[in-house]
Amino acid sequence: MNMKIHILLGSKSDSAVGDKIINTLKQFDIEYKLDVASAHRTPDRVKSLVEESDADVFIGVAGLAAALPGSIAAHTTKPVVGVPVSGKVNLDSILSIVQMPPGIPVAAVGLDRGDNAALLAVEICALKDQKLAKQLEEYREKMRRKVTGD
Amino acid sequence: MNMKIHILLGSKSDSAVGDKIINTLKQFDIEYKLDVASAHRTPDRVKSLVEESDADVFIGVAGLAAALPGSIAAHTTKPVVGVPVSGKVNLDSILSIVQMPPGIPVAAVGLDRGDNAALLAVEICALKDQKLAKQLEEYREKMRRKVTGD
Amino acid sequence: MNMKIHILLGSKSDSAVGDKIINTLKQFDIEYKLDVASAHRTPDRVKSLVEESDADVFIGVAGLAAALPGSIAAHTTKPVVGVPVSGKVNLDSILSIVQMPPGIPVAAVGLDRGDNAALLAVEICALKDQKLAKQLEEYREKMRRKVTGD
Amino acid sequence: MNMKIHILLGSKSDSAVGDKIINTLKQFDIEYKLDVASAHRTPDRVKSLVEESDADVFIGVAGLAAALPGSIAAHTTKPVVGVPVSGKVNLDSILSIVQMPPGIPVAAVGLDRGDNAALLAVEICALKDQKLAKQLEEYREKMRRKVTGD
Amino acid sequence: MNMKIHILLGSKSDSAVGDKIINTLKQFDIEYKLDVASAHRTPDRVKSLVEESDADVFIGVAGLAAALPGSIAAHTTKPVVGVPVSGKVNLDSILSIVQMPPGIPVAAVGLDRGDNAALLAVEICALKDQKLAKQLEEYREKMRRKVTGD
Amino acid sequence: MNMKIHILLGSKSDSAVGDKIINTLKQFDIEYKLDVASAHRTPDRVKSLVEESDADVFIGVAGLAAALPGSIAAHTTKPVVGVPVSGKVNLDSILSIVQMPPGIPVAAVGLDRGDNAALLAVEICALKDQKLAKQLEEYREKMRRKVTGD
Amino acid sequence: MNMKIHILLGSKSDSAVGDKIINTLKQFDIEYKLDVASAHRTPDRVKSLVEESDADVFIGVAGLAAALPGSIAAHTTKPVVGVPVSGKVNLDSILSIVQMPPGIPVAAVGLDRGDNAALLAVEICALKDQKLAKQLEEYREKMRRKVTGD
Amino acid sequence: MNMKIHILLGSKSDSAVGDKIINTLKQFDIEYKLDVASAHRTPDRVKSLVEESDADVFIGVAGLAAALPGSIAAHTTKPVVGVPVSGKVNLDSILSIVQMPPGIPVAAVGLDRGDNAALLAVEICALKDQKLAKQLEEYREKMRRKVTGD
Repeated sequence: MNMKIHILLGSKSDSAVGDKIINTLKQFDIEYKLDVASAHRTPDRVKSLVEESDADVFIGVAGLAAALPGSIAAHTTKPVVGVPVSGKVNLDSILSIVQMPPGIPVAAVGLDRGDNAALLAVEICALKDQKLAKQLEEYREKMRRKVTGD
Repeated sequence: MNMKIHILLGSKSDSAVGDKIINTLKQFDIEYKLDVASAHRTPDRVKSLVEESDADVFIGVAGLAAALPGSIAAHTTKPVVGVPVSGKVNLDSILSIVQMPPGIPVAAVGLDRGDNAALLAVEICALKDQKLAKQLEEYREKMRRKVTGD
Repeated sequence: MNMKIHILLGSKSDSAVGDKIINTLKQFDIEYKLDVASAHRTPDRVKSLVEESDADVFIGVAGLAAALPGSIAAHTTKPVVGVPVSGKVNLDSILSIVQMPPGIPVAAVGLDRGDNAALLAVEICALKDQKLAKQLEEYREKMRRKVTGD
Repeated sequence: MNMKIHILLGSKSDSAVGDKIINTLKQFDIEYKLDVASAHRTPDRVKSLVEESDADVFIGVAGLAAALPGSIAAHTTKPVVGVPVSGKVNLDSILSIVQMPPGIPVAAVGLDRGDNAALLAVEICALKDQKLAKQLEEYREKMRRKVTGD
Repeated sequence: MNMKIHILLGSKSDSAVGDKIINTLKQFDIEYKLDVASAHRTPDRVKSLVEESDADVFIGVAGLAAALPGSIAAHTTKPVVGVPVSGKVNLDSILSIVQMPPGIPVAAVGLDRGDNAALLAVEICALKDQKLAKQLEEYREKMRRKVTGD
Repeated sequence: MNMKIHILLGSKSDSAVGDKIINTLKQFDIEYKLDVASAHRTPDRVKSLVEESDADVFIGVAGLAAALPGSIAAHTTKPVVGVPVSGKVNLDSILSIVQMPPGIPVAAVGLDRGDNAALLAVEICALKDQKLAKQLEEYREKMRRKVTGD
Repeated sequence: MNMKIHILLGSKSDSAVGDKIINTLKQFDIEYKLDVASAHRTPDRVKSLVEESDADVFIGVAGLAAALPGSIAAHTTKPVVGVPVSGKVNLDSILSIVQMPPGIPVAAVGLDRGDNAALLAVEICALKDQKLAKQLEEYREKMRRKVTGD
Repeated sequence: MNMKIHILLGSKSDSAVGDKIINTLKQFDIEYKLDVASAHRTPDRVKSLVEESDADVFIGVAGLAAALPGSIAAHTTKPVVGVPVSGKVNLDSILSIVQMPPGIPVAAVGLDRGDNAALLAVEICALKDQKLAKQLEEYREKMRRKVTGD
């Protein structure tokens, strides 16, 4: 059984963060798919993409009044990771993603932290995939060695 | 031809702000309707309420990651006024409503400023309603006198 | 009957945001006029421009302690849209425009969001102009296609 | 196979948020365990609790320089949810949990949002538990009805 | 020759700060006058009060998008002191008063600091009034003793 | 009788703001003097410069935990203008200058607003100097014309 | 050889934080002394208290534009701990104490964290006092047990 | 008896701040050692480095959710200085280091202020080292002369 991650970017201009997600995911045996869909400009597309998706985990990437992750979460009970994108204010996208109302959780990661969004999604998928779990351990071990330059 | 204002509260707990809106609107000859609908908990309800509404202006009231006004705006090209509701952070609801992405405008008013949301909606409606325009002038005159206690 | 939009920039240095407004308005059949007038340096000019204007909607653009939109609103009961201009602090112009006191509403849009200010003004004018309403729908449809690159 | 959630409170004074987590979890068929352990006062206890835990998902609750969720994440590759607790500053606990460095993700939820932390954890566990998945759907449906008071 | 201070409150609800100003001024031989006038609700009144005033120094007191001090400054080249009034956000009134654009200075004092606004005004007036200058020295000496409880 | 302005920069690195002050003062018939003195590195120098100065108004320029203006004010009952200098945080220097405790007022102007600090100082001095008062009026008139490009 | 800690409160109103410091210090064999002295109202007193003190470590407690710790540090090369006191803004006292300019360090602790200021001072003194070092270890052990309620 | 300072950088990318620390320490007769160790990526390494260190003072340097200084402090009762590193938000690392919970103090210095961290560490060590104490006095005197350019 394969786990799948569905990435939605709020705008093509968020692709630098999208690339960080993909570059991280590529280091794991995991399927993913990326779409561009705006919570504000194409709300129906967000809804249909989410409802028709067979993904196990969603990642929403958005800046400003970053509604996309919350909008994804509104249409699914699958876990949704939200990545705030940096801009002129930064507290806007961070707070718009973190401060979700009761009942509809979003898992916020740090500003522009596509890498961590990917890792969090892999951690979630690894709960039912031993191979992924092992790859995660190796990834972290590699990271440890990088800190100290060994 | 009658102008109509459709108020959506993100939650019943936003009713204090809702009351401010209604108390202000009651001073004008204008039709209004109030519904509770959450952008995150009932996104389809927001969509259908907005698409089926014959309102000229919408007012969305929400706290935290206040997505409701933007969510209304995503489903209409009618003017949408957004009222951030106060809480423990305040910058969250303000920025979530003000910092809308390009293409989908929301008219943000101040924190808990249901009164100003109502007045802005009336100002918009008054553009094609001479009676309302006159009532607005009288309202402002009364307000002026109140400042100085005359 | 023609709707008209009157744009006031607080300073010539705000012209980049002014250009965004005009470039957006040019895509609609709507009259507009642009003036430079400072709430602090030329308050009488703001007053006379506003009082003598036959505009249906005003747009005020200002940075720092961005008083211009509120100053316009003080002299009219027509709808006023306020655009905060970015600088070294950003929360200054945003809060100065959003946090208007009770009784004098301003419709705040996002930081440097001249495009959304224009769209909001067009949305307001479209309430009594079927042609504009249709152009807005087409504009949004075009925007939708642009999101997905169709 | 049973999924398990391990809740760590940074201090006994965080128990109000802990109660929100438990009250939410009790509505689902899911095992959980709660411990108090401080990242700063009892770092070894955090490490041993995490390393010896057979939990599938961790929830860390902390205020101020809320290091606990990140500290848990440092000792596991299981998903970690972080709940910032409110205080005199609020941006401190929010940013301390959201702004994790690359490589060690934490899933931040909103200020004092124990309920959403629980739901996010359940969503994650539900990926390999059909019964939980069904309970989540029912929970959300109930929530929808509550919004509109039906 | 007598120096005069003219205090303008943006709203009657700012009278607690107004009282602090007056209580401080009463300790000095200086004339003052207090009016309520709103930059947004009664802009013409602000203008006429300022232009017809024979005050040497103005003090403007306002909360939220605290435009009053800047509005006074727009109509005079006499020194204007601005007092931000506390509310739900606080950074709004502080930044709205401090971040004045080039050319129109306002002397901002701290949040709700009516006392300091009064002292600053007295300091300014004392430049051409030896008696006031002496009273200021005595006031400060008294304050010094109060710190240490002598 | 000549009025004098004494400018203190907290560091040589604040000289860009110092230049703005001087360039503005040069347009008026007013004496000024500039010194570099740090509230933290040379507190005794600040004290002696202030106590030995025959200035009518002081201007303190400082960034970060901008203590200089308050430190000047601690040693004189002459009016003190404070200019926060921009850096990586900005709210630090603004709040450090605005939020003075009761009893020791500082007149804060905007971030890097050396020009407004100079104008405020001139406004204060103009209270007992008709020529300066006239120059201020002319300056403002020139500024007005510049806004509109006349 | 006895280590000594000298506590300075910026105002009598900071005594709640002062009490936290003293209550913590009382648990250690260490001499301390407390004075009230304001950086702004009694700068000379701060200077003389510091210069005449035989303390090994200073603790400065202040709110608002909390200049006291920096002011102490300006007069000594002994370690100075700074405690920001909470108020209506909080970021003011925190940033005023943390953001010291190069050359004059202050050791900032958290908002109202008199307890941590005391502990930090004791840690510093314990470097040349084995008994204190042992007491610190015991204090921390007791704290550890308190976390888990053992 | 020689005092020793142990510097830990959270990441190699923090080396610019590390260099500031070292360049400052080099001006004093004091031993130091620098390691890279991440509170999140290599928590065990932080623990063992701290526990095996014979340093008198630790300096932790970190950005984002800057947990490193607190993490060091969790494993020692020696004084720990924390340096927040600048990034896209800045308030994140500042608050994560300043707002430590009761019982585990960290001495926070300003953003990127490696120089002050070094000086604070030297001040602490100088309490039992007359030579260092003298060097500190000379350093400060040199600094004083640099302010005024003598």
